[in-house]
Amino acid sequence: MTAPLTDYSRLCIHTMTTKPWSLRESVDGYTKAGVPGVTVWRQHLDPGGPAEAAKILQGSGLRVVSLCRGGFFPAETATGRQANIEDNMRAIDEAAMIGAPLVVLVCGAIPKFSLEESRKQITEGIAAVLPHAEAAGVRLAIEPLHPMYADDRSAVNTLEQANDMAATLASPWVGVTVDVYHLWWDPHLEREIRRAGKNIFSFHVCDWRTPTRDLLNDRGLMGEGCIKIRQIRGWVEATGYEGPIEVEIFSSEFWSGDQTELVDRIKGAYLTHC
Amino acid sequence: MTAPLTDYSRLCIHTMTTKPWSLRESVDGYTKAGVPGVTVWRQHLDPGGPAEAAKILQGSGLRVVSLCRGGFFPAETATGRQANIEDNMRAIDEAAMIGAPLVVLVCGAIPKFSLEESRKQITEGIAAVLPHAEAAGVRLAIEPLHPMYADDRSAVNTLEQANDMAATLASPWVGVTVDVYHLWWDPHLEREIRRAGKNIFSFHVCDWRTPTRDLLNDRGLMGEGCIKIRQIRGWVEATGYEGPIEVEIFSSEFWSGDQTELVDRIKGAYLTHC
Repeated sequence: MTAPLTDYSRLCIHTMTTKPWSLRESVDGYTKAGVPGVTVWRQHLDPGGPAEAAKILQGSGLRVVSLCRGGFFPAETATGRQANIEDNMRAIDEAAMIGAPLVVLVCGAIPKFSLEESRKQITEGIAAVLPHAEAAGVRLAIEPLHPMYADDRSAVNTLEQANDMAATLASPWVGVTVDVYHLWWDPHLEREIRRAGKNIFSFHVCDWRTPTRDLLNDRGLMGEGCIKIRQIRGWVEATGYEGPIEVEIFSSEFWSGDQTELVDRIKGAYLTHC
Repeated sequence: MTAPLTDYSRLCIHTMTTKPWSLRESVDGYTKAGVPGVTVWRQHLDPGGPAEAAKILQGSGLRVVSLCRGGFFPAETATGRQANIEDNMRAIDEAAMIGAPLVVLVCGAIPKFSLEESRKQITEGIAAVLPHAEAAGVRLAIEPLHPMYADDRSAVNTLEQANDMAATLASPWVGVTVDVYHLWWDPHLEREIRRAGKNIFSFHVCDWRTPTRDLLNDRGLMGEGCIKIRQIRGWVEATGYEGPIEVEIFSSEFWSGDQTELVDRIKGAYLTHC
Protein backbone atom coordinates (compact mmCIF):
# COMPACT_ATOMS: atom_id res chain seq x y z
CA MET A 1 0.00 0.00 0.00
CA THR A 2 1.17 3.47 -0.89
CA ALA A 3 1.73 5.60 2.23
CA PRO A 4 -0.49 8.66 2.70
CA LEU A 5 0.97 12.07 1.98
CA THR A 6 2.02 13.85 5.16
CA ASP A 7 2.60 17.41 4.00
CA TYR A 8 1.68 19.83 1.24
CA SER A 9 5.06 20.10 -0.45
CA ARG A 10 3.79 18.49 -3.67
CA LEU A 11 0.33 20.06 -3.72
CA CYS A 12 -0.56 22.15 -6.74
CA ILE A 13 -3.95 23.62 -7.63
CA HIS A 14 -5.25 24.48 -11.08
CA THR A 15 -6.65 27.98 -11.42
CA MET A 16 -9.70 26.37 -13.07
CA THR A 17 -10.41 24.66 -9.76
CA THR A 18 -11.06 28.10 -8.31
CA LYS A 19 -12.45 29.44 -11.55
CA PRO A 20 -14.31 32.46 -10.07
CA TRP A 21 -11.00 33.82 -8.76
CA SER A 22 -8.76 35.97 -10.90
CA LEU A 23 -5.14 34.88 -11.17
CA ARG A 24 -4.20 37.34 -8.44
CA GLU A 25 -6.95 36.04 -6.15
CA SER A 26 -5.87 32.45 -6.80
CA VAL A 27 -2.24 33.28 -6.09
CA ASP A 28 -3.22 35.05 -2.87
CA GLY A 29 -5.59 32.28 -1.84
CA TYR A 30 -3.10 29.48 -2.50
CA THR A 31 -0.16 31.20 -0.78
CA LYS A 32 -2.24 32.06 2.28
CA ALA A 33 -3.30 28.42 2.48
CA GLY A 34 0.27 27.19 2.14
CA VAL A 35 -0.31 25.59 -1.25
CA PRO A 36 3.08 25.71 -2.99
CA GLY A 37 2.17 25.02 -6.62
CA VAL A 38 -0.12 26.42 -9.28
CA THR A 39 -1.10 25.38 -12.78
CA VAL A 40 -2.37 28.34 -14.74
CA TRP A 41 -5.20 28.12 -17.24
CA ARG A 42 -4.86 30.42 -20.20
CA GLN A 43 -8.11 32.27 -19.54
CA HIS A 44 -6.66 33.28 -16.19
CA LEU A 45 -3.85 35.12 -17.98
CA ASP A 46 -6.55 37.69 -18.74
CA PRO A 47 -7.20 40.52 -18.28
CA GLY A 48 -3.57 41.56 -17.76
CA GLY A 49 -2.01 39.16 -20.24
CA PRO A 50 1.02 36.92 -19.74
CA ALA A 51 3.47 39.71 -18.83
CA GLU A 52 1.28 40.88 -15.98
CA ALA A 53 0.61 37.25 -14.99
CA ALA A 54 4.35 36.62 -14.92
CA LYS A 55 4.80 39.50 -12.47
CA ILE A 56 2.01 38.23 -10.22
CA LEU A 57 3.44 34.72 -10.22
CA GLN A 58 7.10 35.62 -9.85
CA GLY A 59 6.41 37.76 -6.82
CA SER A 60 4.35 35.04 -5.18
CA GLY A 61 6.91 32.35 -4.51
CA LEU A 62 4.53 29.80 -6.02
CA ARG A 63 5.96 27.08 -8.24
CA VAL A 64 4.35 27.35 -11.67
CA VAL A 65 3.81 23.74 -12.64
CA SER A 66 2.23 24.04 -16.06
CA LEU A 67 0.10 26.05 -18.41
CA CYS A 68 -3.25 24.55 -19.42
CA ARG A 69 -4.04 24.04 -22.11
CA GLY A 70 -2.62 23.72 -25.56
CA GLY A 71 -3.85 21.25 -28.11
CA PHE A 72 -7.04 21.20 -30.20
CA PHE A 73 -4.95 20.54 -33.30
CA PRO A 74 -7.47 18.99 -35.72
CA ALA A 75 -9.41 21.25 -38.04
CA GLU A 76 -11.39 20.81 -41.22
CA THR A 77 -9.13 23.04 -43.32
CA ALA A 78 -5.40 23.56 -43.72
CA THR A 79 -5.93 27.17 -42.66
CA GLY A 80 -7.65 26.00 -39.51
CA ARG A 81 -4.87 23.57 -38.71
CA GLN A 82 -2.26 26.27 -39.24
CA ALA A 83 -4.19 28.61 -36.94
CA ASN A 84 -4.23 25.88 -34.29
CA ILE A 85 -0.48 25.36 -34.65
CA GLU A 86 0.10 29.08 -34.21
CA ASP A 87 -2.15 29.17 -31.18
CA ASN A 88 -0.09 26.37 -29.64
CA MET A 89 3.09 28.33 -30.32
CA ARG A 90 1.53 31.28 -28.49
CA ALA A 91 0.69 28.96 -25.58
CA ILE A 92 4.32 27.84 -25.49
CA ASP A 93 5.47 31.47 -25.48
CA GLU A 94 3.04 32.27 -22.67
CA ALA A 95 4.29 29.29 -20.67
CA ALA A 96 7.87 30.48 -21.08
CA MET A 97 6.86 33.99 -20.00
CA ILE A 98 5.19 32.85 -16.79
CA GLY A 99 7.92 30.36 -15.96
CA ALA A 100 5.85 27.25 -16.65
CA PRO A 101 8.10 24.42 -17.86
CA LEU A 102 5.16 22.50 -19.34
CA VAL A 103 2.15 22.95 -21.59
CA VAL A 104 -0.57 20.33 -21.19
CA LEU A 105 -2.24 19.31 -24.43
CA VAL A 106 -5.94 18.56 -24.73
CA CYS A 107 -5.44 17.24 -28.18
CA GLY A 108 -8.76 17.90 -29.90
CA ALA A 109 -11.11 15.99 -32.18
CA ILE A 110 -13.56 16.81 -34.93
CA PRO A 111 -16.83 14.86 -34.67
CA LYS A 112 -17.20 14.34 -38.41
CA PHE A 113 -13.64 13.00 -38.75
CA SER A 114 -12.69 9.43 -38.09
CA LEU A 115 -10.76 9.16 -34.84
CA GLU A 116 -7.77 8.02 -36.90
CA GLU A 117 -7.85 11.24 -38.92
CA SER A 118 -8.09 13.37 -35.77
CA ARG A 119 -5.13 11.47 -34.28
CA LYS A 120 -3.09 11.92 -37.44
CA GLN A 121 -3.67 15.67 -37.32
CA ILE A 122 -2.81 15.74 -33.62
CA THR A 123 0.50 13.97 -34.21
CA GLU A 124 1.30 16.30 -37.10
CA GLY A 125 0.35 19.34 -35.04
CA ILE A 126 2.56 18.39 -32.12
CA ALA A 127 5.43 17.65 -34.51
CA ALA A 128 4.97 21.10 -36.03
CA VAL A 129 5.24 22.95 -32.71
CA LEU A 130 7.99 20.78 -31.26
CA PRO A 131 10.94 22.87 -32.48
CA HIS A 132 9.28 25.94 -30.99
CA ALA A 133 8.79 24.14 -27.66
CA GLU A 134 12.37 22.99 -27.59
CA ALA A 135 13.66 26.47 -28.41
CA ALA A 136 11.52 27.89 -25.59
CA GLY A 137 12.58 25.20 -23.14
CA VAL A 138 8.94 24.19 -22.60
CA ARG A 139 7.87 20.56 -22.54
CA LEU A 140 4.58 19.27 -23.94
CA ALA A 141 2.38 16.68 -22.24
CA ILE A 142 -0.22 14.68 -24.15
CA GLU A 143 -3.17 14.28 -21.80
CA PRO A 144 -5.45 11.40 -22.70
CA LEU A 145 -9.06 12.38 -22.02
CA HIS A 146 -11.94 10.18 -20.89
CA PRO A 147 -13.70 8.43 -23.79
CA MET A 148 -16.79 10.55 -23.15
CA TYR A 149 -14.79 13.42 -24.70
CA ALA A 150 -13.75 11.52 -27.83
CA ASP A 151 -16.24 13.39 -30.02
CA ASP A 152 -14.92 16.94 -29.86
CA ARG A 153 -12.26 17.30 -27.15
CA SER A 154 -9.69 14.58 -27.65
CA ALA A 155 -9.24 11.59 -29.92
CA VAL A 156 -6.58 10.42 -27.47
CA ASN A 157 -8.57 8.50 -24.85
CA THR A 158 -6.25 6.00 -23.23
CA LEU A 159 -2.77 6.24 -21.81
CA GLU A 160 -1.76 3.54 -24.27
CA GLN A 161 -2.62 5.87 -27.13
CA ALA A 162 -0.78 8.78 -25.52
CA ASN A 163 2.26 6.56 -24.99
CA ASP A 164 2.10 5.41 -28.60
CA MET A 165 1.90 8.99 -29.80
CA ALA A 166 4.80 10.07 -27.60
CA ALA A 167 6.80 7.12 -28.93
CA THR A 168 6.07 8.18 -32.51
CA LEU A 169 7.16 11.75 -31.79
CA ALA A 170 10.26 10.42 -29.97
CA SER A 171 11.38 13.66 -28.36
CA PRO A 172 12.50 14.36 -24.79
CA TRP A 173 10.18 17.38 -25.03
CA VAL A 174 7.03 15.27 -25.39
CA GLY A 175 5.55 13.21 -22.58
CA VAL A 176 2.18 12.42 -21.05
CA THR A 177 -0.11 13.65 -18.29
CA VAL A 178 -1.81 11.08 -16.06
CA ASP A 179 -5.18 12.38 -14.85
CA VAL A 180 -7.05 9.94 -12.64
CA TYR A 181 -10.43 11.30 -13.75
CA HIS A 182 -9.81 10.37 -17.36
CA LEU A 183 -8.02 7.08 -16.84
CA TRP A 184 -9.23 5.34 -13.67
CA TRP A 185 -11.53 2.89 -15.48
CA ASP A 186 -8.82 1.58 -17.85
CA PRO A 187 -7.96 -2.08 -17.23
CA HIS A 188 -4.50 -1.47 -18.69
CA LEU A 189 -3.73 1.62 -16.62
CA GLU A 190 -1.06 0.13 -14.37
CA ARG A 191 0.73 -1.41 -17.33
CA GLU A 192 0.64 1.83 -19.32
CA ILE A 193 1.80 3.95 -16.38
CA ARG A 194 4.77 1.60 -16.04
CA ARG A 195 5.40 1.89 -19.75
CA ALA A 196 5.20 5.71 -19.65
CA GLY A 197 7.91 5.72 -16.99
CA LYS A 198 9.99 8.90 -17.08
CA ASN A 199 7.65 10.26 -19.71
CA ILE A 200 5.06 11.13 -17.06
CA PHE A 201 5.37 14.90 -17.01
CA SER A 202 2.42 15.63 -14.72
CA PHE A 203 -0.20 14.00 -12.50
CA HIS A 204 -3.74 15.32 -11.97
CA VAL A 205 -6.26 14.29 -9.31
CA CYS A 206 -9.93 14.76 -8.48
CA ASP A 207 -12.74 12.19 -8.15
CA TRP A 208 -15.61 10.61 -10.08
CA ARG A 209 -18.97 11.22 -8.48
CA THR A 210 -21.88 8.80 -8.47
CA PRO A 211 -24.07 10.03 -9.96
CA THR A 212 -22.15 12.37 -12.24
CA ARG A 213 -24.71 15.00 -13.16
CA ASP A 214 -22.82 16.74 -15.95
CA LEU A 215 -20.26 15.52 -18.46
CA LEU A 216 -18.00 18.51 -17.93
CA ASN A 217 -18.50 20.28 -14.65
CA ASP A 218 -19.38 17.79 -11.96
CA ARG A 219 -16.02 16.44 -10.88
CA GLY A 220 -15.64 15.55 -7.24
CA LEU A 221 -13.21 16.43 -4.51
CA MET A 222 -10.84 13.58 -3.78
CA GLY A 223 -12.69 11.08 -1.60
CA GLU A 224 -16.13 12.01 -2.90
CA GLY A 225 -16.08 9.37 -5.59
CA CYS A 226 -14.97 5.93 -6.66
CA ILE A 227 -11.44 6.53 -7.94
CA LYS A 228 -8.71 4.66 -6.05
CA ILE A 229 -6.47 7.73 -6.20
CA ARG A 230 -3.80 6.49 -3.81
CA GLN A 231 -3.39 3.25 -5.71
CA ILE A 232 -2.89 5.14 -8.97
CA ARG A 233 -0.45 7.53 -7.26
CA GLY A 234 1.48 4.46 -6.14
CA TRP A 235 1.72 3.24 -9.73
CA VAL A 236 2.87 6.67 -10.88
CA GLU A 237 5.48 6.96 -8.15
CA ALA A 238 6.77 3.46 -8.89
CA THR A 239 8.07 4.97 -12.15
CA GLY A 240 10.18 7.40 -10.11
CA TYR A 241 7.75 10.33 -10.40
CA GLU A 242 8.20 12.69 -7.47
CA GLY A 243 6.64 15.80 -8.99
CA PRO A 244 3.58 17.83 -8.11
CA ILE A 245 0.16 16.36 -7.44
CA GLU A 246 -2.24 18.72 -9.19
CA VAL A 247 -5.82 19.21 -8.10
CA GLU A 248 -7.96 19.94 -11.14
CA ILE A 249 -11.68 20.04 -10.36
CA PHE A 250 -14.28 21.43 -12.74
CA SER A 251 -17.43 21.79 -10.68
CA SER A 252 -20.32 24.17 -11.07
CA GLU A 253 -21.22 23.27 -7.51
CA PHE A 254 -17.84 24.23 -6.07
CA TRP A 255 -17.52 27.30 -8.27
CA SER A 256 -20.78 28.62 -6.81
CA GLY A 257 -19.43 28.37 -3.26
CA ASP A 258 -16.71 30.06 -1.23
CA GLN A 259 -13.33 29.52 -2.87
CA THR A 260 -11.25 29.97 0.28
CA GLU A 261 -13.27 27.23 1.92
CA LEU A 262 -12.81 25.07 -1.17
CA VAL A 263 -9.03 25.40 -0.93
CA ASP A 264 -9.24 24.30 2.71
CA ARG A 265 -11.35 21.30 1.76
CA ILE A 266 -8.85 20.43 -0.96
CA LYS A 267 -6.05 20.42 1.61
CA GLY A 268 -7.95 18.06 3.86
CA ALA A 269 -8.94 15.73 1.03
CA TYR A 270 -5.38 15.76 -0.29
CA LEU A 271 -3.91 14.25 2.86
CA THR A 272 -6.81 11.89 3.47
CA HIS A 273 -7.43 10.52 -0.01
CA CYS A 274 -4.40 11.09 -2.26
CA MET B 1 -17.05 0.14 -47.85
CA THR B 2 -19.99 -1.68 -46.33
CA ALA B 3 -23.09 -1.43 -48.53
CA PRO B 4 -26.12 0.41 -47.13
CA LEU B 5 -29.05 -1.63 -45.88
CA THR B 6 -31.85 -1.77 -48.42
CA ASP B 7 -34.76 -3.17 -46.43
CA TYR B 8 -36.05 -3.55 -42.90
CA SER B 9 -35.67 -7.30 -42.55
CA ARG B 10 -33.01 -6.99 -39.82
CA LEU B 11 -34.47 -3.99 -38.01
CA CYS B 12 -35.33 -4.43 -34.35
CA ILE B 13 -36.39 -1.76 -31.87
CA HIS B 14 -35.95 -1.82 -28.10
CA THR B 15 -39.09 -1.08 -26.14
CA MET B 16 -37.00 1.43 -24.15
CA THR B 17 -36.57 3.43 -27.36
CA THR B 18 -40.32 4.06 -27.24
CA LYS B 19 -40.41 4.10 -23.45
CA PRO B 20 -43.75 5.94 -23.07
CA TRP B 21 -45.48 3.12 -24.96
CA SER B 22 -46.74 0.03 -23.18
CA LEU B 23 -45.62 -3.30 -24.62
CA ARG B 24 -48.90 -3.58 -26.49
CA GLU B 25 -48.52 -0.09 -27.94
CA SER B 26 -44.94 -0.85 -28.96
CA VAL B 27 -45.96 -4.09 -30.60
CA ASP B 28 -48.77 -2.33 -32.46
CA GLY B 29 -46.53 0.59 -33.43
CA TYR B 30 -43.71 -1.61 -34.70
CA THR B 31 -45.92 -3.99 -36.66
CA LYS B 32 -47.83 -1.13 -38.29
CA ALA B 33 -44.50 0.40 -39.31
CA GLY B 34 -43.22 -2.90 -40.69
CA VAL B 35 -40.51 -3.27 -38.08
CA PRO B 36 -40.01 -7.04 -37.74
CA GLY B 37 -38.06 -7.32 -34.48
CA VAL B 38 -38.42 -6.25 -30.87
CA THR B 39 -36.18 -6.38 -27.82
CA VAL B 40 -38.24 -6.23 -24.67
CA TRP B 41 -37.12 -4.39 -21.54
CA ARG B 42 -38.22 -5.99 -18.32
CA GLN B 43 -40.19 -2.99 -17.10
CA HIS B 44 -42.34 -3.35 -20.22
CA LEU B 45 -43.40 -6.80 -19.04
CA ASP B 46 -45.54 -4.88 -16.55
CA PRO B 47 -48.35 -4.48 -15.76
CA GLY B 48 -49.49 -7.82 -17.18
CA GLY B 49 -46.38 -9.80 -16.39
CA PRO B 50 -44.46 -12.17 -18.67
CA ALA B 51 -47.38 -14.51 -19.40
CA GLU B 52 -49.51 -11.66 -20.71
CA ALA B 53 -46.47 -10.25 -22.54
CA ALA B 54 -45.90 -13.62 -24.16
CA LYS B 55 -49.46 -13.60 -25.50
CA ILE B 56 -49.10 -10.09 -26.87
CA LEU B 57 -45.82 -10.96 -28.55
CA GLN B 58 -46.79 -14.37 -29.89
CA GLY B 59 -49.86 -12.96 -31.56
CA SER B 60 -47.92 -10.16 -33.17
CA GLY B 61 -45.66 -11.98 -35.57
CA LEU B 62 -42.73 -9.95 -34.25
CA ARG B 63 -39.41 -11.66 -33.74
CA VAL B 64 -38.42 -11.34 -30.08
CA VAL B 65 -34.70 -10.70 -30.26
CA SER B 66 -33.73 -10.40 -26.60
CA LEU B 67 -34.78 -9.47 -23.11
CA CYS B 68 -33.01 -6.48 -21.54
CA ARG B 69 -31.58 -6.58 -19.08
CA GLY B 70 -30.03 -9.02 -16.68
CA GLY B 71 -26.81 -8.41 -14.86
CA PHE B 72 -26.03 -6.13 -11.91
CA PHE B 73 -24.30 -9.04 -10.19
CA PRO B 74 -21.96 -7.30 -7.69
CA ALA B 75 -23.24 -6.57 -4.20
CA GLU B 76 -21.69 -5.73 -0.87
CA THR B 77 -23.04 -8.83 0.89
CA ALA B 78 -23.37 -12.50 0.06
CA THR B 79 -27.12 -12.13 0.55
CA GLY B 80 -27.15 -9.31 -1.97
CA ARG B 81 -25.17 -11.33 -4.48
CA GLN B 82 -27.52 -14.28 -4.07
CA ALA B 83 -30.53 -12.01 -4.58
CA ASN B 84 -28.92 -10.74 -7.79
CA ILE B 85 -28.31 -14.28 -9.01
CA GLU B 86 -31.94 -15.15 -8.33
CA ASP B 87 -33.11 -12.05 -10.15
CA ASN B 88 -31.06 -13.10 -13.16
CA MET B 89 -32.65 -16.54 -13.05
CA ARG B 90 -36.04 -14.86 -13.10
CA ALA B 91 -34.93 -12.80 -16.11
CA ILE B 92 -33.92 -16.01 -17.86
CA ASP B 93 -37.30 -17.53 -17.08
CA GLU B 94 -39.07 -14.44 -18.38
CA ALA B 95 -37.00 -14.55 -21.56
CA ALA B 96 -37.97 -18.17 -22.10
CA MET B 97 -41.62 -17.33 -21.50
CA ILE B 98 -41.72 -14.55 -24.08
CA GLY B 99 -39.69 -16.49 -26.61
CA ALA B 100 -36.52 -14.39 -26.33
CA PRO B 101 -33.46 -16.53 -27.02
CA LEU B 102 -31.13 -14.05 -25.32
CA VAL B 103 -30.75 -12.04 -22.12
CA VAL B 104 -28.44 -9.02 -22.37
CA LEU B 105 -26.31 -8.43 -19.28
CA VAL B 106 -25.51 -4.98 -17.96
CA CYS B 107 -23.04 -6.44 -15.58
CA GLY B 108 -23.04 -4.00 -12.66
CA ALA B 109 -20.43 -2.32 -10.46
CA ILE B 110 -20.21 -1.08 -6.92
CA PRO B 111 -18.48 2.32 -6.65
CA LYS B 112 -16.66 1.46 -3.41
CA PHE B 113 -15.28 -1.79 -4.84
CA SER B 114 -12.18 -2.00 -6.96
CA LEU B 115 -13.08 -2.67 -10.57
CA GLU B 116 -11.29 -6.02 -10.23
CA GLU B 117 -13.58 -7.03 -7.35
CA SER B 118 -16.69 -6.02 -9.31
CA ARG B 119 -15.45 -8.02 -12.29
CA LYS B 120 -14.74 -11.05 -10.14
CA GLN B 121 -18.29 -10.96 -8.77
CA ILE B 122 -19.68 -10.53 -12.28
CA THR B 123 -17.82 -13.57 -13.55
CA GLU B 124 -18.97 -15.61 -10.53
CA GLY B 125 -22.54 -14.39 -10.97
CA ILE B 126 -22.70 -15.36 -14.63
CA ALA B 127 -21.16 -18.76 -13.83
CA ALA B 128 -23.84 -19.27 -11.17
CA VAL B 129 -26.76 -18.65 -13.54
CA LEU B 130 -25.26 -20.44 -16.53
CA PRO B 131 -26.77 -23.89 -15.82
CA HIS B 132 -30.17 -22.23 -15.50
CA ALA B 133 -29.69 -20.42 -18.82
CA GLU B 134 -28.63 -23.59 -20.55
CA ALA B 135 -31.59 -25.52 -19.14
CA ALA B 136 -33.94 -22.77 -20.34
CA GLY B 137 -32.29 -22.59 -23.75
CA VAL B 138 -31.55 -18.88 -23.27
CA ARG B 139 -28.18 -17.40 -24.15
CA LEU B 140 -26.47 -14.63 -22.18
CA ALA B 141 -24.66 -11.66 -23.74
CA ILE B 142 -22.10 -9.62 -21.81
CA GLU B 143 -22.56 -6.03 -22.94
CA PRO B 144 -19.55 -3.84 -22.30
CA LEU B 145 -20.71 -0.36 -21.27
CA HIS B 146 -19.04 2.98 -21.96
CA PRO B 147 -16.37 3.88 -19.38
CA MET B 148 -18.59 6.71 -18.13
CA TYR B 149 -20.70 3.94 -16.54
CA ALA B 150 -17.81 2.18 -14.80
CA ASP B 151 -18.78 3.52 -11.38
CA ASP B 152 -22.14 1.89 -10.82
CA ARG B 153 -23.45 0.28 -14.00
CA SER B 154 -20.74 -1.94 -15.39
CA ALA B 155 -17.15 -2.75 -14.59
CA VAL B 156 -16.91 -4.25 -18.08
CA ASN B 157 -16.06 -1.28 -20.28
CA THR B 158 -14.31 -2.59 -23.36
CA LEU B 159 -15.05 -5.38 -25.77
CA GLU B 160 -11.65 -6.80 -24.90
CA GLN B 161 -12.80 -7.25 -21.30
CA ALA B 162 -16.09 -8.81 -22.39
CA ASN B 163 -14.21 -11.17 -24.69
CA ASP B 164 -11.84 -12.08 -21.87
CA MET B 165 -14.76 -12.77 -19.56
CA ALA B 166 -16.55 -14.87 -22.16
CA ALA B 167 -13.31 -16.82 -22.71
CA THR B 168 -13.04 -17.45 -18.97
CA LEU B 169 -16.62 -18.70 -18.80
CA ALA B 170 -16.04 -20.79 -21.92
CA SER B 171 -19.65 -21.73 -22.64
CA PRO B 172 -21.58 -21.67 -25.92
CA TRP B 173 -24.33 -19.97 -23.88
CA VAL B 174 -22.21 -16.88 -23.14
CA GLY B 175 -21.29 -14.29 -25.74
CA VAL B 176 -21.11 -10.52 -26.13
CA THR B 177 -23.24 -7.63 -27.31
CA VAL B 178 -21.64 -4.97 -29.49
CA ASP B 179 -23.28 -1.58 -28.91
CA VAL B 180 -21.78 1.21 -30.99
CA TYR B 181 -22.66 3.83 -28.35
CA HIS B 182 -20.50 2.16 -25.75
CA LEU B 183 -17.62 1.08 -27.94
CA TRP B 184 -17.14 3.49 -30.85
CA TRP B 185 -14.20 5.35 -29.26
CA ASP B 186 -12.12 2.21 -28.60
CA PRO B 187 -8.92 2.08 -30.68
CA HIS B 188 -8.98 -1.73 -30.46
CA LEU B 189 -12.61 -2.14 -31.49
CA GLU B 190 -12.02 -3.69 -34.91
CA ARG B 191 -9.52 -6.16 -33.47
CA GLU B 192 -11.83 -7.17 -30.63
CA ILE B 193 -14.87 -7.54 -32.91
CA ARG B 194 -12.79 -9.88 -35.05
CA ARG B 195 -11.73 -11.75 -31.94
CA ALA B 196 -15.33 -12.01 -30.68
CA GLY B 197 -16.31 -13.66 -33.95
CA LYS B 198 -19.24 -16.03 -33.57
CA ASN B 199 -19.56 -14.90 -29.97
CA ILE B 200 -21.34 -11.72 -31.08
CA PHE B 201 -24.87 -12.47 -29.96
CA SER B 202 -26.36 -9.04 -30.65
CA PHE B 203 -25.65 -5.66 -32.21
CA HIS B 204 -27.08 -2.34 -30.95
CA VAL B 205 -27.06 1.03 -32.70
CA CYS B 206 -27.80 4.68 -31.96
CA ASP B 207 -25.51 7.74 -32.10
CA TRP B 208 -23.32 9.96 -29.92
CA ARG B 209 -24.49 13.56 -29.90
CA THR B 210 -22.22 16.59 -29.68
CA PRO B 211 -22.83 17.98 -27.17
CA THR B 212 -24.20 15.13 -25.10
CA ARG B 213 -26.31 16.86 -22.48
CA ASP B 214 -26.95 13.95 -20.17
CA LEU B 215 -24.91 10.87 -19.31
CA LEU B 216 -27.90 8.55 -19.57
CA ASN B 217 -30.73 9.89 -21.66
CA ASP B 218 -29.36 11.94 -24.52
CA ARG B 219 -28.50 9.35 -27.12
CA GLY B 220 -28.97 10.32 -30.72
CA LEU B 221 -30.78 8.85 -33.67
CA MET B 222 -28.38 7.25 -36.12
CA GLY B 223 -26.82 10.03 -38.20
CA GLU B 224 -27.23 12.69 -35.52
CA GLY B 225 -23.79 12.08 -34.07
CA CYS B 226 -20.20 11.12 -34.69
CA ILE B 227 -20.30 7.32 -34.64
CA LYS B 228 -19.23 5.65 -37.88
CA ILE B 229 -22.05 3.12 -37.53
CA ARG B 230 -21.76 1.58 -40.98
CA GLN B 231 -18.04 0.98 -40.57
CA ILE B 232 -18.63 -0.82 -37.28
CA ARG B 233 -21.48 -2.83 -38.83
CA GLY B 234 -19.02 -3.85 -41.53
CA TRP B 235 -16.59 -5.13 -38.91
CA VAL B 236 -19.38 -7.03 -37.16
CA GLU B 237 -20.63 -8.59 -40.39
CA ALA B 238 -17.10 -9.59 -41.37
CA THR B 239 -17.34 -12.10 -38.50
CA GLY B 240 -20.35 -13.68 -40.20
CA TYR B 241 -22.99 -11.90 -38.12
CA GLU B 242 -26.24 -11.63 -40.04
CA GLY B 243 -28.58 -11.08 -37.11
CA PRO B 244 -30.80 -8.20 -36.10
CA ILE B 245 -29.66 -4.59 -35.94
CA GLU B 246 -31.24 -3.25 -32.78
CA VAL B 247 -32.09 0.40 -32.27
CA GLU B 248 -31.69 1.28 -28.61
CA ILE B 249 -32.05 4.99 -27.93
CA PHE B 250 -32.48 6.46 -24.45
CA SER B 251 -33.56 10.03 -24.99
CA SER B 252 -35.65 12.29 -22.82
CA GLU B 253 -36.09 14.43 -25.91
CA PHE B 254 -37.50 11.64 -28.06
CA TRP B 255 -39.57 10.22 -25.23
CA SER B 256 -41.33 13.57 -24.88
CA GLY B 257 -42.38 13.53 -28.54
CA ASP B 258 -44.69 11.45 -30.71
CA GLN B 259 -43.58 7.81 -30.68
CA THR B 260 -45.15 6.88 -34.03
CA GLU B 261 -43.17 9.67 -35.64
CA LEU B 262 -40.04 8.48 -33.83
CA VAL B 263 -40.44 4.99 -35.30
CA ASP B 264 -40.72 6.54 -38.76
CA ARG B 265 -37.59 8.59 -38.18
CA ILE B 266 -35.79 5.46 -37.01
CA LYS B 267 -36.70 3.70 -40.24
CA GLY B 268 -35.30 6.56 -42.30
CA ALA B 269 -32.12 6.81 -40.27
CA TYR B 270 -31.66 3.05 -40.39
CA LEU B 271 -31.39 2.93 -44.17
CA THR B 272 -29.41 6.14 -44.44
CA HIS B 273 -26.87 5.72 -41.65
CA CYS B 274 -26.62 2.06 -40.60
